[in-house]
Amino acid sequence: MTDIALIEAAAERLRGRVRTTPLLSSPRLDAVAGRPVLVKAECLQHTGAFKARGAWAAVSALPEGTAGVLALSSGNHAQGVAWAARAHGLPAVVVMPADAPAVKIEGTRALGAELVLYDRAREDRDALGARLAAERGLALIRPYDDREVIAGQASVGLEIAAQAAEAGVARADVLVCCGGGGLTAGIALALEARAPGLRARPVEPDGFDDTARSLAAGRPVRNARVSGSLCDAILTPEPGRLTFPVMARLCGPGLVVTEDEALRAMALASSALKIVLEPGGAVALAAALFHGAALAEGPVIAVASGGNVEPALLARAIAGATAPAGPPTPG
Amino acid sequence: MTDIALIEAAAERLRGRVRTTPLLSSPRLDAVAGRPVLVKAECLQHTGAFKARGAWAAVSALPEGTAGVLALSSGNHAQGVAWAARAHGLPAVVVMPADAPAVKIEGTRALGAELVLYDRAREDRDALGARLAAERGLALIRPYDDREVIAGQASVGLEIAAQAAEAGVARADVLVCCGGGGLTAGIALALEARAPGLRARPVEPDGFDDTARSLAAGRPVRNARVSGSLCDAILTPEPGRLTFPVMARLCGPGLVVTEDEALRAMALASSALKIVLEPGGAVALAAALFHGAALAEGPVIAVASGGNVEPALLARAIAGATAPAGPPTPG
Repeated sequence: MTDIALIEAAAERLRGRVRTTPLLSSPRLDAVAGRPVLVKAECLQHTGAFKARGAWAAVSALPEGTAGVLALSSGNHAQGVAWAARAHGLPAVVVMPADAPAVKIEGTRALGAELVLYDRAREDRDALGARLAAERGLALIRPYDDREVIAGQASVGLEIAAQAAEAGVARADVLVCCGGGGLTAGIALALEARAPGLRARPVEPDGFDDTARSLAAGRPVRNARVSGSLCDAILTPEPGRLTFPVMARLCGPGLVVTEDEALRAMALASSALKIVLEPGGAVALAAALFHGAALAEGPVIAVASGGNVEPALLARAIAGATAPAGPPTPG
Repeated sequence: MTDIALIEAAAERLRGRVRTTPLLSSPRLDAVAGRPVLVKAECLQHTGAFKARGAWAAVSALPEGTAGVLALSSGNHAQGVAWAARAHGLPAVVVMPADAPAVKIEGTRALGAELVLYDRAREDRDALGARLAAERGLALIRPYDDREVIAGQASVGLEIAAQAAEAGVARADVLVCCGGGGLTAGIALALEARAPGLRARPVEPDGFDDTARSLAAGRPVRNARVSGSLCDAILTPEPGRLTFPVMARLCGPGLVVTEDEALRAMALASSALKIVLEPGGAVALAAALFHGAALAEGPVIAVASGGNVEPALLARAIAGATAPAGPPTPG
């Protein structure tokens, strides 16, 4: 499994390749939360999300002679893998549903990946991926259940440990937007080694709180559905096989926020910090701002994990998240 | 005048107090511009604009026993001075027109400043300021015609010199959003000493290009008007007394962009870099993206100087800057 030695080795390979993102703050956010709020702005990472870290760690760990890489993703992971593969001079194949948002298809293609679009209703993504991998000798990069990917995401935790120390924060909850748990588990492992007074806690959207419920139950439980939330970046059926045991050992209880809270956090991140967040990348900040009663006393750290949002949705959030939320996005 | 010794002394006082902002890039911006574009994200600075640097430099240089500080500003300079004064334990008085946007009044008040609102039609701002300064022993902090303020803004140039070298960029135009010229002159002075292959060039909005015309004429010339642009942060009647000679000696020709180009740059900054810019903080990026024919070959560096924008205007820019621009804001 991923341990601090693997994390440090990944961080060494990431050095100079991924951005050390800033830990931002604003008196306005502090006033809303009633406590100091520190925001780790991973939306400023290459490709607009932390996923570039895990992708780089995994691709850079591949054996010599690997023919190329494969990702099954319509989201931030696809762009991270495409970006890392291109920088390594490796072809990347991304399997994506044909009805994925145009902005994500174009974004992945612009990073040089070959797209294989499939019919969500008629084709089996995993079978298609397995065939492509076998036929073309491609290495599959999983989005979270991969020890190198977790080690790469853990570099966010190493940076938080150093930046929190610089800011004089030794004890705090570290809130993390959580899908499959790669980022949350990685950060938890890094903090265990480098900043044991900081405790990682997963944050999920209402109705998709598999991790919170799994942590409470002590065993993995599934979501009733995996689509129908604006927080598309962090919808997964259940916690990962590798990530759940780490989270169960190290994380505090999960937190759950509403879509409206995520949109309001996007608006505040824009006006107070001048950063752009997507709904799934804003849930941790939403918990920091609006769920103070559930947090440890004192300062709170929130990871703003990504900013790849449709312009129309961002405009709606900025113009006023109190407007009706509209229909959920199709799965 | 401001020289490299004064700049280095200011940078020393700013260390750990202002943020070292990242130099961001994105394949998407490179594709639009047809060349590498590096963006110095000063919108991520405390108070949302580079003005915090000059304000800190000026306030930290005040003699012991100063009773407080005074700023005559309805914009980013007011927030910078309020922020720096509070951190120094000094009272700040900000003189602002009573019809200033609520968001700027609230932003300045939230930073602990005392606001003195005046009637733009009936009262003389400078006379009011002079009376307040005399009666209460306040030190006036000018927005650009102040050697310490220019030295503080120059710290952006020191950072650009180091970050460009790290990125392997030795020769490039450095485009700077220009109002009175404090940031442009400061950066030009820092680059002269630390990165002589980098050349500062002011960028202004159409109709408010006093600096471009002054540089072309070899003497200061005035704008026909000082209001009526969305780029409110950088509207000044003419280049500063201290800043113009520096710009005339060191800067390349000025560039002029339209409001629509500034709004499109805001939209691209949001989608490609995940940062929020105000129109006046986006003109340099607009020139980098849309005025390539006027630039030196190779990479270009654009300073994104601020992000304090009304949410409705930001939403409009993000949702599509090709929509009709609407009426200009009232002066």
